[in-house]
Amino acid sequence: MNITIICIGNELLSGKTINTNATWLGKTINSIGHYVHKQIVIPDDRSIIKDTLSGLMMNKEIDGCFIITGGLGPTHDDVTRKSIFEFFGSKEKFDIKYWEDLNNRFKQNNIEIPLSNKSQALIPDNGDVIDNPIGSARGYKFNKGRITTFSLPGVPSEMKAMTEASIIPWLKQKSEKKIHEMTIRTTGIPESVLMEEISSVLRDNQGCEIGFYPSLFGVDIQLSSKIKKRTAELGENISNILGHNIFGYNKDSMAQIVVKMAMKKNLSFSFAESCTGGLLGHRITEVPGSSDIFKGGAVVYSDDAKISVLGVDKRCIKKHGAVSKETAKIMAEKVRSIFKSDYGVSVTGIAGPGGGTKKKPVGLVYVALSNNKGTKVEKLNFSHDRKKNKLRTGQVVLNLMRLEMMNV
Amino acid sequence: MNITIICIGNELLSGKTINTNATWLGKTINSIGHYVHKQIVIPDDRSIIKDTLSGLMMNKEIDGCFIITGGLGPTHDDVTRKSIFEFFGSKEKFDIKYWEDLNNRFKQNNIEIPLSNKSQALIPDNGDVIDNPIGSARGYKFNKGRITTFSLPGVPSEMKAMTEASIIPWLKQKSEKKIHEMTIRTTGIPESVLMEEISSVLRDNQGCEIGFYPSLFGVDIQLSSKIKKRTAELGENISNILGHNIFGYNKDSMAQIVVKMAMKKNLSFSFAESCTGGLLGHRITEVPGSSDIFKGGAVVYSDDAKISVLGVDKRCIKKHGAVSKETAKIMAEKVRSIFKSDYGVSVTGIAGPGGGTKKKPVGLVYVALSNNKGTKVEKLNFSHDRKKNKLRTGQVVLNLMRLEMMNV
Repeated sequence: MNITIICIGNELLSGKTINTNATWLGKTINSIGHYVHKQIVIPDDRSIIKDTLSGLMMNKEIDGCFIITGGLGPTHDDVTRKSIFEFFGSKEKFDIKYWEDLNNRFKQNNIEIPLSNKSQALIPDNGDVIDNPIGSARGYKFNKGRITTFSLPGVPSEMKAMTEASIIPWLKQKSEKKIHEMTIRTTGIPESVLMEEISSVLRDNQGCEIGFYPSLFGVDIQLSSKIKKRTAELGENISNILGHNIFGYNKDSMAQIVVKMAMKKNLSFSFAESCTGGLLGHRITEVPGSSDIFKGGAVVYSDDAKISVLGVDKRCIKKHGAVSKETAKIMAEKVRSIFKSDYGVSVTGIAGPGGGTKKKPVGLVYVALSNNKGTKVEKLNFSHDRKKNKLRTGQVVLNLMRLEMMNV
Repeated sequence: MNITIICIGNELLSGKTINTNATWLGKTINSIGHYVHKQIVIPDDRSIIKDTLSGLMMNKEIDGCFIITGGLGPTHDDVTRKSIFEFFGSKEKFDIKYWEDLNNRFKQNNIEIPLSNKSQALIPDNGDVIDNPIGSARGYKFNKGRITTFSLPGVPSEMKAMTEASIIPWLKQKSEKKIHEMTIRTTGIPESVLMEEISSVLRDNQGCEIGFYPSLFGVDIQLSSKIKKRTAELGENISNILGHNIFGYNKDSMAQIVVKMAMKKNLSFSFAESCTGGLLGHRITEVPGSSDIFKGGAVVYSDDAKISVLGVDKRCIKKHGAVSKETAKIMAEKVRSIFKSDYGVSVTGIAGPGGGTKKKPVGLVYVALSNNKGTKVEKLNFSHDRKKNKLRTGQVVLNLMRLEMMNV
């Protein structure tokens, strides 16, 4: 099974859009034991699309599928449908039922449907239609010689939903051996230190592929092998060494883990956020069901708000500053009491790029966690990048909550 | 000048690494008036690399350059150098001076140089060497027929430095005219409706390329032309028609625009967030300087918090529900008064996937804006996707603030 991905879109060639579709397809296809052999990115140009397809088809050795993404929208620069219909010699049929369906959908949103959407009701006489559960652009499937061609829209959410519903089941039927993968998600430990700590098990490893993927949130360790036991054993050995530096596995997110632990231990929490501005609440509320344990929070961006909304003592801010361990401590205690939650968690810092002093530079952040055992404060030092400082702080705070809950 | 980018690397095909190199090259090459015509991603495989190059060379119409990235490291899976030397029929020479240089560099870092690095001192007898100012893997340049081939390492920082030092000056010599671009950022209007509204100016357009890029946040319209006046004129015509549906241009973000307007008009604001959970505050505080106009907010995720923290009347929630226009209205008014801000803005809704009823389905959201003129409430209907509902709501709320401030 030879798989080629063809991404169509000027925006991909000009670098306006990062080609995350190709990345996602590669990963998803890999996870079911197939490989992508080639990716090609070409412009929204009918003759180039057709030339590319015939060039690929000419390779007689190829036996597999083409997955085309992009160019199925209703606008004039969306030329994929026309190009592939021409390439496969399809006659266009107008799907009146689908057109009525589209009309109704637009009506429900009180919008008159533009005539340009009519093109999305055109279907080929010699190919299949792939339903789009979340958008108006449907996909197509053609069989020619030894190749099956799938054409999907480029909007990532639609492309993903349609791939999962149509292409993955088709590929699974033709599946070669499954790849057994495991992602070990760590935080709070630099890549080089982590590598050193696990160097002995890496040396003894037999036949597992290992990749390290550092980000602002920590380092992911990716294991893969065709033998299930190999992946599992290596995963266990690494887990034993890294211990609590591991916050989760595979698709776990830190926010999910924190919500899950809080639900299990029946602990509620609230946030007093200064420099993170609401990011903590945002991350927690991305997790379905978080309303069971998240009471809410106060975004106290100004000194005034810290005083009047949270009830922080004016003199504390005057004496120690809004960014200080003393203020962080009181913020956590106050928010815990206002929201009547088991944990009160606070953040106060200088996100940058302005606002730093010699004594309190940009990137200085205090975080505090208050519960019935007392209040812990941690001091963090980050960089000059505002957005990164916020994201890093968010991860440290959630991790602090996780570590605290582990001991309950 | 026809430019093809060839990225070599199994990690790109398997989706372990996002191909940001191709994105960066596209953008950088575009900015000096050239276009990338095609991107190809292939595995670290000698015969595939050579076949790809000969396939591309066979196209007699192509007159330009190939930019190859990846596979020049010292390890066994880096096969690019060998493959291109074979393809161009090069004899290998050992660059003893460079090998000594590498030895010294490693010594300075107190590391013994691995013998595998020796391969990086090999140079071709029929091509040029491209210096690497920050790493050990140098690049190569070959001329064959009408094509110049550049081969660079895949590490992004090295690839970028070498492109800027070697490829960009070469391309500039051959430069066609500079491209004049403009991005018009719209929100609150579906792509197909937008197209219909501007169809007349699109028809009259002469020589401007136009692209439409829809996302959860709105539709971006991208104009580009070699003639500055053309881009400017079309931009102006589209702007005249779309008016307040345009929230910004080029790199403007909605949050930036809102902060800028509020600063200019000296208006402060605060948020009472239920289903967005802190996202609004997070987006606003990503903008440097937002502390001047953002007073803070309350994340009132539970009914309790709405009552005790904001002071919403218990009976209002009982009578109309937490997700209702009445509760949204009071939330906005209360948060405005607590934070003593000019605008109080609230959000209450059912983000999903659970929590919906027949009368109040998942995706139902009320947003309210309160100021000295009164309180406006808007009802929104979104989908079942929790994360998307939050993001969409965030954009609608910020846009509501923008529209309100336009009238001040």
